[in-house]
Amino acid sequence: MDDLVMQALLYDFYGELLTEHQRAVYEDFIFNDLSLGEIAQQYGISRQGVHDLVKRCGRQLAEYESRLHLVARFMAVKDKTGALEALIVREKERIDEGVYDRMLAVLHEISEDL
Amino acid sequence: MDDLVMQALLYDFYGELLTEHQRAVYEDFIFNDLSLGEIAQQYGISRQGVHDLVKRCGRQLAEYESRLHLVARFMAVKDKTGALEALIVREKERIDEGVYDRMLAVLHEISEDL
Repeated sequence: MDDLVMQALLYDFYGELLTEHQRAVYEDFIFNDLSLGEIAQQYGISRQGVHDLVKRCGRQLAEYESRLHLVARFMAVKDKTGALEALIVREKERIDEGVYDRMLAVLHEISEDL
Repeated sequence: MDDLVMQALLYDFYGELLTEHQRAVYEDFIFNDLSLGEIAQQYGISRQGVHDLVKRCGRQLAEYESRLHLVARFMAVKDKTGALEALIVREKERIDEGVYDRMLAVLHEISEDL
């Protein structure tokens, strides 16, 4: 998996466990593409401080994943809802039209909840 | 929802974020039904210490849920996989038998992954 996609997933699942300050700095560096210097200036900390904070947050997010496995579970379920959708679509002609639409709607809702 | 069921779900999702010691004491009190006195003796701490630790763990688990909402998401997805299964079963006679079996198998796997 693309490293940035993985970081985004980890952040999506566990970002709420970081402090507000950590989140702000981490987002600026990883997702908003600001430089260490720009972020350092913005928050009044050293470039080294920004660098350490980002590293520490990355390790913390990875540590949460190693304990809770939410990203791994999310991807496994996502694969399977995709497989299920393919099976349903394959039977489209045989399934009652209203039921077919509801099946896909429920599948879509499941993807939203994940 | 039954309080013990909720505690079990919270513990299931976030227990790994407690320390090994916290987990042992919390399990003994909440799930193994040992008394404060029995647990205090077993771990060489005071009854008040056991009581405080259990309370603190309960608050910590609830705090994780308020940030990550995993139990709420789990229940929402579980409801929807149930609804989807009912729709599939309803179309059993129309769907190809092999595809039908695979649909239910995938749904079952999704429930296992949650």
